[in-house]
Amino acid sequence: MAELRFATRLNSFASGAHKYWPEQQGKPSVLQMIERASTAKGLTHVDLNYPQHITTDISTIKNKLEELGLAVNGMQMRWDAPEFKIGAFTNPDPKIRRQAIELTKRGIDAGREFGSNLMTLWMGQDGFDYCFQVDYKKIWEDAVSAVREIAEYAPDCDISIEYKPNEPRAYSIFPNVTTCLLAIEEAGCENLGVTLDFAHVLYANEIPAYAAAMVARRSKLMGLDCNDGWGKRDDGLMVASVNPRATLEFLWQMKKDGYNGAYYFDTFPDASGLDPVREAETNIATVKRLLGLCDKLDNNPELAAAIEKQDAVASQQIINDILFMK
Amino acid sequence: MAELRFATRLNSFASGAHKYWPEQQGKPSVLQMIERASTAKGLTHVDLNYPQHITTDISTIKNKLEELGLAVNGMQMRWDAPEFKIGAFTNPDPKIRRQAIELTKRGIDAGREFGSNLMTLWMGQDGFDYCFQVDYKKIWEDAVSAVREIAEYAPDCDISIEYKPNEPRAYSIFPNVTTCLLAIEEAGCENLGVTLDFAHVLYANEIPAYAAAMVARRSKLMGLDCNDGWGKRDDGLMVASVNPRATLEFLWQMKKDGYNGAYYFDTFPDASGLDPVREAETNIATVKRLLGLCDKLDNNPELAAAIEKQDAVASQQIINDILFMK
Amino acid sequence: MAELRFATRLNSFASGAHKYWPEQQGKPSVLQMIERASTAKGLTHVDLNYPQHITTDISTIKNKLEELGLAVNGMQMRWDAPEFKIGAFTNPDPKIRRQAIELTKRGIDAGREFGSNLMTLWMGQDGFDYCFQVDYKKIWEDAVSAVREIAEYAPDCDISIEYKPNEPRAYSIFPNVTTCLLAIEEAGCENLGVTLDFAHVLYANEIPAYAAAMVARRSKLMGLDCNDGWGKRDDGLMVASVNPRATLEFLWQMKKDGYNGAYYFDTFPDASGLDPVREAETNIATVKRLLGLCDKLDNNPELAAAIEKQDAVASQQIINDILFMK
Amino acid sequence: MAELRFATRLNSFASGAHKYWPEQQGKPSVLQMIERASTAKGLTHVDLNYPQHITTDISTIKNKLEELGLAVNGMQMRWDAPEFKIGAFTNPDPKIRRQAIELTKRGIDAGREFGSNLMTLWMGQDGFDYCFQVDYKKIWEDAVSAVREIAEYAPDCDISIEYKPNEPRAYSIFPNVTTCLLAIEEAGCENLGVTLDFAHVLYANEIPAYAAAMVARRSKLMGLDCNDGWGKRDDGLMVASVNPRATLEFLWQMKKDGYNGAYYFDTFPDASGLDPVREAETNIATVKRLLGLCDKLDNNPELAAAIEKQDAVASQQIINDILFMK
Repeated sequence: MAELRFATRLNSFASGAHKYWPEQQGKPSVLQMIERASTAKGLTHVDLNYPQHITTDISTIKNKLEELGLAVNGMQMRWDAPEFKIGAFTNPDPKIRRQAIELTKRGIDAGREFGSNLMTLWMGQDGFDYCFQVDYKKIWEDAVSAVREIAEYAPDCDISIEYKPNEPRAYSIFPNVTTCLLAIEEAGCENLGVTLDFAHVLYANEIPAYAAAMVARRSKLMGLDCNDGWGKRDDGLMVASVNPRATLEFLWQMKKDGYNGAYYFDTFPDASGLDPVREAETNIATVKRLLGLCDKLDNNPELAAAIEKQDAVASQQIINDILFMK
Repeated sequence: MAELRFATRLNSFASGAHKYWPEQQGKPSVLQMIERASTAKGLTHVDLNYPQHITTDISTIKNKLEELGLAVNGMQMRWDAPEFKIGAFTNPDPKIRRQAIELTKRGIDAGREFGSNLMTLWMGQDGFDYCFQVDYKKIWEDAVSAVREIAEYAPDCDISIEYKPNEPRAYSIFPNVTTCLLAIEEAGCENLGVTLDFAHVLYANEIPAYAAAMVARRSKLMGLDCNDGWGKRDDGLMVASVNPRATLEFLWQMKKDGYNGAYYFDTFPDASGLDPVREAETNIATVKRLLGLCDKLDNNPELAAAIEKQDAVASQQIINDILFMK
Repeated sequence: MAELRFATRLNSFASGAHKYWPEQQGKPSVLQMIERASTAKGLTHVDLNYPQHITTDISTIKNKLEELGLAVNGMQMRWDAPEFKIGAFTNPDPKIRRQAIELTKRGIDAGREFGSNLMTLWMGQDGFDYCFQVDYKKIWEDAVSAVREIAEYAPDCDISIEYKPNEPRAYSIFPNVTTCLLAIEEAGCENLGVTLDFAHVLYANEIPAYAAAMVARRSKLMGLDCNDGWGKRDDGLMVASVNPRATLEFLWQMKKDGYNGAYYFDTFPDASGLDPVREAETNIATVKRLLGLCDKLDNNPELAAAIEKQDAVASQQIINDILFMK
Repeated sequence: MAELRFATRLNSFASGAHKYWPEQQGKPSVLQMIERASTAKGLTHVDLNYPQHITTDISTIKNKLEELGLAVNGMQMRWDAPEFKIGAFTNPDPKIRRQAIELTKRGIDAGREFGSNLMTLWMGQDGFDYCFQVDYKKIWEDAVSAVREIAEYAPDCDISIEYKPNEPRAYSIFPNVTTCLLAIEEAGCENLGVTLDFAHVLYANEIPAYAAAMVARRSKLMGLDCNDGWGKRDDGLMVASVNPRATLEFLWQMKKDGYNGAYYFDTFPDASGLDPVREAETNIATVKRLLGLCDKLDNNPELAAAIEKQDAVASQQIINDILFMK
């Protein structure tokens, strides 16, 4: 499995900064986090948040990454300036909405300089909190037309929508898989796709493999955020720490549908005081272990027959024997 | 508001049967429940479950309804025979799936005899409980093609999909509003639409007015189940008993989009030991009261301005003054 | 592990009755369900619902059980008569509340005839649905004093409270573990304890091993309902089908605290159209497999050190190696 | 109602800082936030987070507050230093746990200088994320004994525990009302009580008035955080913006139980881009309006009779007439 790409959330490497850089005042720099990330064995890529991680000129970051043997998997937009609190693509002020769109285009441009053609749009600010706060039809159309404009700006770039039910807004404009597929159909651009975040999917009340299959039917899976959670919120836990069976099914579904992107870890070691390097290495090991088990699911006529009959008892027994020790 | 149509869940009128029919052994008959329903002042219609409520010849039921001044709003399919436990339109056995489809056509035929051209499909049995239980793409296509066949069978009839996140299955094939809209787009029939059940919508993590607006954009609202709940499950509580503000917004959104169907109460007085007649009358009174307040929302330039600016403080003040006593 | 006791929900064996007893009209009898249960290899006990399962004289049921090699693990109260809809121990009518208490005593008496000294109280009817429906202090005291009276009636019998967040009521009087422990403290009887239902615990927002540890600190674990779920509702799925890691931790915690009761399967094969005999056998096999793995957790200094440091990365690696195949 | 005390979350007044202080670089200071808070009409108090808000000498802050006509309602601990990420009172490192306890004592001392004898403990860092991460009994005892030590340090001070189901940890050590009551009983100090945060209570699956009644039975309500939410997470919305009926019942329950503390608004205007001054003023107006309606609930024999009978239809009608406009 030498060719697998493993990427991770760069900000995780600020976890425990007071112990890793004991003499340092203030937060670690992007270059420091990259250096620390590079010590995680098996990690091959990072994602960069735009514009937050472009704190210096791009060539400096790029050279540092190359020097450390890392590459950029993709860019991820974060509209966290105060003016975007009430919305980026759905901001009621047309000028601020325009700024959000233009900022996104600059993020795509920056990604090109890093050699990446993947831009992930997690539109966290776009949504609503209260009844009688928004015109639902208008903000939907504002969201879709902005996504379309972004996609048309860079037809050679993969533009991937990542959904999440809520947080920071009480209701997100794109909360679940079918909402994204409907938006993509309305936007009508070939280079639009979906990023699935395992923990988001769980608390969107979806089985992750179902979400992956739905994406494969109508669009393209462009990214995946591996992690786990308890189904209530975005816990950001280690891969398969809660739902190993659903993780295995998810990886198998993606594999059958030909996913060839990176395995990106969107986990929050900081929230549990965990060492981010060991945490990333554990995630890589877990994904490799489960991908290895996927081979036993392929060409397994008993499993295929159980699924065809929707016979959950039979598949439970088969999976137990493949997944668990005795 | 003389022209408003109010319908209700017929089975509610079995609530407290031991007190209403103290000498009776066994459950009340459909005709008995209809008689009791007719004592609720303001009630104009009932919905009939198919095939459960057709326990006698249709003309007997129809005559009884006419005699009591009630009409049939619509038919509602309930595939509750044991063979459908693992699925009606998505049953792994093609023969049983065929039975489910044909039974639905018979339900439409029965509705025509009652003078109704509305068939509601709540596909409660179609879904999954376990990882590795189903082929997600196959069951989706089985669901969509069955809905299409039903719609094509009766192009003059409104065929309305009612969604629900779970129960009895852990995951429903149509759990939320955008799933239904995607299915309707794939089915491609003009006479398909959506029924919104307020309590289902809440625990699908949607604001009801958002769901109504999304339906109006892409399809047609064909039915609505008025009730309330705590956002965790299908509580089936009285209208506006928990979320009066969201109920008001929902009714206003529907009104603006031109809804002209019945107000159907899908509540469970039995679960709280409530008298179903007084409960239905209270629901009617609450809907009338809130529809009256909707007039104060129309042509309200302050409210329109607040919503245009997404200014939740302003709209909160405006709605407080319209909705609440001082 | 020859001495382990495995019990199950008797009503599960009505699942697929139309195929198992193809010529039969109506529901299977209690004796028929017992006969079918006895065909599940490894099953040693059943629980009986009171009064629902005592449809004939006790000696007939008892003889049938003995003939088939089964014993009664415990009795479970079900107050499902219509007058209890709004409450058993918290019914607003003192006469009906008295009936509920006396019925429970008769259930204990019946259990004694079966040689069982375990009565499980799942007080499903006791709770509330609406604001302004109940006096919270009064119904709490009514619940506690009824439980006390039951416990004092049979001091030699284990009286075990099973909690559940909701359903059929929107809010249960005993929704989570600390509520039960508080009630038990107020009731003040030595023979009171707690039954943990894994799926209930999950959607009470508790990690099952936490709930078991809390019970062990302050009271006694008297029963456990093995099953699994997605954390949103009482799914009643097969053991470890969703949360194998939490199941392993739960079994380990119980074992450390000296649990010596039965492993009872409170699952709903009917909801997924599953064969209940194969389903029960699969549950028995899964529990045995996981109990076997518990041995590798005992006397494991690396695991003990990881837990002492709250080092979730270390414990994740250790558990992955014990639980999962490579 | 001249004597009512209204306090608020000071950090809310950083919302929209770029517009309120357009020329300023960086975040507003504590003194700036206090100045802005003082412009909210009707606001009488603030709470101060310890140690975050003590950025300058106490007398400077105190003088500024007095100058502006504000007083300190209470202190609120926030253990947000990196070493507390994995726990304050339950930190696995005894030295860090000791630091957390001593810091809390310093917070109490600071509060005394402000003339406040209320310290609120929201133990956000104390909990767990993963199975096999902690010894549940040990961390429970560490939490309880720390709370006891704090309470014994300042017997003349109200020490109030605020619970929350999760966030930042996946599971909090004190997630719901009965957990707090059990902890308080074990700690055994008279000066311990509970703070109810309306939004936390909702997503702990409790009706707020139930939680208030349970606190009144066994302990003392020492603080309340007024806000609202959708029952899934800590939305921090304006008072009664989602659940006006539950808010009314909550205020009525508190009033009946003799609550005489401040009405503190723990809302997040920043998350919706709202103006915090108008938002606070709206909250004050809403609470006053609802407290006024409480007078109509007192000495209302129809309502008393409905509640005694648990007749939710009757109480629904009565409350509708008191709460809603026609």
